[in-house]
Amino acid sequence: MRKIRIGSVGLGRLGLRHAENIAARVTGAELAALCDVDGKKLGETADRLGVAARFESFDEMLASPDIDAVVLVSPSGLHTGQIAAALEAGKHVFSEKPLGVTVEECRIAEKAVEAHPDRVFMLGFMRRFDESYRYAYRKVKAGEIGRPILFRSYSQDPERFIDGAIAFAAHSGGQFLDMAVHDIDLARWFTGSEPRTAYAVGGCYAHPEFARYGDGDNVSCLMQFDDGCMVFLFAGRTAPHGYNVETEIIGTEGILRIASVPQKNLVEILDTSGIRRECSENFLERFETAYINEIQEFVDCISQGRKPEVSVYDGTRVSEIAYSCKAAFESGELMRF
Amino acid sequence: MRKIRIGSVGLGRLGLRHAENIAARVTGAELAALCDVDGKKLGETADRLGVAARFESFDEMLASPDIDAVVLVSPSGLHTGQIAAALEAGKHVFSEKPLGVTVEECRIAEKAVEAHPDRVFMLGFMRRFDESYRYAYRKVKAGEIGRPILFRSYSQDPERFIDGAIAFAAHSGGQFLDMAVHDIDLARWFTGSEPRTAYAVGGCYAHPEFARYGDGDNVSCLMQFDDGCMVFLFAGRTAPHGYNVETEIIGTEGILRIASVPQKNLVEILDTSGIRRECSENFLERFETAYINEIQEFVDCISQGRKPEVSVYDGTRVSEIAYSCKAAFESGELMRF
Amino acid sequence: MRKIRIGSVGLGRLGLRHAENIAARVTGAELAALCDVDGKKLGETADRLGVAARFESFDEMLASPDIDAVVLVSPSGLHTGQIAAALEAGKHVFSEKPLGVTVEECRIAEKAVEAHPDRVFMLGFMRRFDESYRYAYRKVKAGEIGRPILFRSYSQDPERFIDGAIAFAAHSGGQFLDMAVHDIDLARWFTGSEPRTAYAVGGCYAHPEFARYGDGDNVSCLMQFDDGCMVFLFAGRTAPHGYNVETEIIGTEGILRIASVPQKNLVEILDTSGIRRECSENFLERFETAYINEIQEFVDCISQGRKPEVSVYDGTRVSEIAYSCKAAFESGELMRF
Amino acid sequence: MRKIRIGSVGLGRLGLRHAENIAARVTGAELAALCDVDGKKLGETADRLGVAARFESFDEMLASPDIDAVVLVSPSGLHTGQIAAALEAGKHVFSEKPLGVTVEECRIAEKAVEAHPDRVFMLGFMRRFDESYRYAYRKVKAGEIGRPILFRSYSQDPERFIDGAIAFAAHSGGQFLDMAVHDIDLARWFTGSEPRTAYAVGGCYAHPEFARYGDGDNVSCLMQFDDGCMVFLFAGRTAPHGYNVETEIIGTEGILRIASVPQKNLVEILDTSGIRRECSENFLERFETAYINEIQEFVDCISQGRKPEVSVYDGTRVSEIAYSCKAAFESGELMRF
Repeated sequence: MRKIRIGSVGLGRLGLRHAENIAARVTGAELAALCDVDGKKLGETADRLGVAARFESFDEMLASPDIDAVVLVSPSGLHTGQIAAALEAGKHVFSEKPLGVTVEECRIAEKAVEAHPDRVFMLGFMRRFDESYRYAYRKVKAGEIGRPILFRSYSQDPERFIDGAIAFAAHSGGQFLDMAVHDIDLARWFTGSEPRTAYAVGGCYAHPEFARYGDGDNVSCLMQFDDGCMVFLFAGRTAPHGYNVETEIIGTEGILRIASVPQKNLVEILDTSGIRRECSENFLERFETAYINEIQEFVDCISQGRKPEVSVYDGTRVSEIAYSCKAAFESGELMRF
Repeated sequence: MRKIRIGSVGLGRLGLRHAENIAARVTGAELAALCDVDGKKLGETADRLGVAARFESFDEMLASPDIDAVVLVSPSGLHTGQIAAALEAGKHVFSEKPLGVTVEECRIAEKAVEAHPDRVFMLGFMRRFDESYRYAYRKVKAGEIGRPILFRSYSQDPERFIDGAIAFAAHSGGQFLDMAVHDIDLARWFTGSEPRTAYAVGGCYAHPEFARYGDGDNVSCLMQFDDGCMVFLFAGRTAPHGYNVETEIIGTEGILRIASVPQKNLVEILDTSGIRRECSENFLERFETAYINEIQEFVDCISQGRKPEVSVYDGTRVSEIAYSCKAAFESGELMRF
Repeated sequence: MRKIRIGSVGLGRLGLRHAENIAARVTGAELAALCDVDGKKLGETADRLGVAARFESFDEMLASPDIDAVVLVSPSGLHTGQIAAALEAGKHVFSEKPLGVTVEECRIAEKAVEAHPDRVFMLGFMRRFDESYRYAYRKVKAGEIGRPILFRSYSQDPERFIDGAIAFAAHSGGQFLDMAVHDIDLARWFTGSEPRTAYAVGGCYAHPEFARYGDGDNVSCLMQFDDGCMVFLFAGRTAPHGYNVETEIIGTEGILRIASVPQKNLVEILDTSGIRRECSENFLERFETAYINEIQEFVDCISQGRKPEVSVYDGTRVSEIAYSCKAAFESGELMRF
Repeated sequence: MRKIRIGSVGLGRLGLRHAENIAARVTGAELAALCDVDGKKLGETADRLGVAARFESFDEMLASPDIDAVVLVSPSGLHTGQIAAALEAGKHVFSEKPLGVTVEECRIAEKAVEAHPDRVFMLGFMRRFDESYRYAYRKVKAGEIGRPILFRSYSQDPERFIDGAIAFAAHSGGQFLDMAVHDIDLARWFTGSEPRTAYAVGGCYAHPEFARYGDGDNVSCLMQFDDGCMVFLFAGRTAPHGYNVETEIIGTEGILRIASVPQKNLVEILDTSGIRRECSENFLERFETAYINEIQEFVDCISQGRKPEVSVYDGTRVSEIAYSCKAAFESGELMRF
């Protein structure tokens, strides 16, 4: 059984993690090439992971016949172009979110995917591959909680990363595009339905710097979906306790809560502060296994000639909704879809 | 030190509890009279609690010089009239919520209270007297969580009481008036601020009967308050696990969650269903101590010549806001205050 | 219905609490007299609680025909004598633990109780009146956890009270007599069985002062009971997080844990230390309701002509077992009963 | 960097898992050969995992120059012989516990390891490689909980696997040898100390079948270690809720609890049974990552010329202690080391 040969693009924090996972944690795959504009980091990482093929140019990497698939962890603005080029070059493509930085870009990606129906395209909504989310999803689909009433989902980044967030704010799409997209994806995935209305509020509670970009440091949105389900999203950048991604699904016959205590591990500490759990530090810690699982699914889809459950259209739809939430927040008006 | 002599009005479930508490659990008070239209229940209860003075007529009870104060747990539609009459008769008044069934009625109650500045008037927002809520309140006021960002509060009644709720629906003010008023009170109390906008959604997810009255079995509302705080309220009638009142206050420097696991007691059960906590059954169980504490505060205010923190204007304001939420829900429009 | 008139003896922390409860929180009882050797404290407390009859002499109080019952919260060494004298004087008696400071003293108390079968005698094993323990007890007796396999019970006092514990050490019976007696009582109550063997270990882990009295600051004991149930007890004085009384009962069909997280209230705090619960501070906070319930039961037994479930023989038996545990600890040998 | 070529021996549940992990989850290793007496299972597994070299004979596998190391997941009675033979054949050896079925066998393994100081030998105490245990260990070693007072550790197998346990009972070493060895290893690892005394109790609470072999279905042991630390172990086969491995370390300045709620994942379920967490099903689920980590450490030790922290002497010592606990249980006497 020949291994799928993957070229991984971008060696930022998440890119590095994907490369390490492909090198050692994914069955049926081989880290065949690395690509990054930073030659020094590229060389060091490739040496460490034992990868011979190294490219500072994405196009040169695409030209290599030795690569079956690419994993894109490049800057968001490059995603659409790289997706199209890679598919055109005959490669399977896994792209980190967002699909594109505008809805128009997403449409371009859609076209590229449609033009290559024999290639696997997959978008990195990693939460769908977290074991706890999957477990909850199976219960919901099996009808164990009855009809969904309220879907509530939080994404909170730790306050201690705020300097980075402020520095990045000018290039950021804002809280809804940056963070809430994952919650929007989950809401659509769990309900199988689409938003009908959206009302969004928020502000700069601790960091006025975000106001300059029309953004808040904490925002929220209440939507009603076509199936009647209420959806409440909250995205914040000032969590005092760590990285907090939690979801609650209230149904007519049961309620599921995923990670309502965003614990780092199974250790409970009793000391002068009381009885406590330490919190996940960041997305890499919380979703460590999910990042492996999603690449595994990408590789398995290629091997088995399947298409991933998450499609290019999901990427577009999530972006559209996030833009509507953003517009609702900026205008103070109720949005109707 | 002479005990405050209280006449308690109404012997429904909560009225009975109030009577029992006054008889045995409140310092400095005496259950001096009971009043209910049901003579049989009145007699039995008075016998059991050792109360000589029994009235089927509220007016006759008011005429008794032997009573210092009344506790009103009568049907909502009677509250305003009884408040005014009791104050006029020189009694101190504790009234269960709601203050009145319309905002106009609330204004009448305000006038009556204003006309008797030497009398104590107190409204039964019992959650303010729950020890966990008070503990959280002190932390918020001491600045321990910084600036409030999101105030989220749930009131969920158990599904197993749904028949009663349906039977009562015609006379009910709906979910926002019946249940969410407590959450609205808490939001105003914790933030010290007032709503500026409200958007409400919901529906009949399990019980279409509520639609006939323009109500839902589960509803929610997103508001932004004048101080910027986001407020998300959820009120439901179909909780599978029991009575669930929980509140979360996310601040810039800390987060407090009150009763996020609505546990019945300190017993944890490990059996074939996993590791579980049983849930509070109803408001009487969850707020057992709060119901004592609030009457204690009422009695202490009378004894010490103080006025309670919660005023008649709080009652009016909460009703106004609940009516706006209801209007938002019915119209599907964004409300601006 | 005439109220039971109680004279309360001893105004230390717990004595004061009992007096306050009798004055205001117990149905069918009246705080008719107070007794303490400290005249100043006696006067202040009696004034505050509105009690006219005040005694610096226990014998004088007993002479009062105006008193139906006494509640003894006096120094342990006085218990037996006061129990006998009070019964002789025709009073019902509630005594705080221990029944006596030696097993011989306990026998004297037994004789006194036997000599007055028409009087109610009750011993203050308050944990049996805690709502969580009672809930667990009912489940065990109903067979919900099958046959008990392991009964594990901890009593931990907070480190911050260590100075008081050291100062009291010379007069203390040691960890098994002071603290573990409650766990021994629970083990006998839940299993309905008696110990057959005991092996005890421990030491001075933080405070060598206790060694002078043959005691440790933390000790434990493993016993096997006649019904086969394993019983593990742990008693400590150095808990960093607060007052921790927890019990686990492992059965063949279910497991119950009581207060495994000794939470102060229902507030959960998320801050830089993680996600935490604050802990109960001391026994008065943790067993606030149990202290009310036990006096209520004492009063109800008097009113209804019943005898309390916990008998004078339970007091003796628990003392015997605690002394055996102490002997096991001091000798390092296995004790057989 | 050449990969370490591993031959994996034994394809039972755990053997299969090790083989799969080596094939796909361990960096720097290659699953080079498989060995099992069951030719059919061997062929199927080798096909599935893409392994060409297949052996029904252990000796033939050892003869292969193509293998650097062996992982032994064979029946316990074969361990010592296979360890010695593999080391003699120049292979590095990872062996599942127990090191040997008697202390004498363990000594033979010691001799074999001593005779090949250039080979890596490692024993499968996987709990040391669980992330939560490692996290707790670092805190203990950093002094964060002060001096250890009580080390409590439970190993509970689910009741639903009882038929298998009964079928295996004749060949089992009993509860202390089968299950408590992991807790004994943890106690020694965390305290860095050795037992001085042991008292053990238990019995057949649900399944009299174990009595025939001098064993119980649930047993416990209280030990005091040389450094004074109290150690309480409990091992059971009848857990109603699932697989429960938990440990508590009470120190003078802090307390750590590892997996006191043995949750399956981060999903909390609220339904008619209350608020619950589902439990880990078995050791493979609970220690999924630990099993990967330990083989990774074995491979890294080989690659880096290091020796693992857990030595052959740990294997012997744990067996000696487990035999003493067993003797204590069988005799009802206190053991002194």
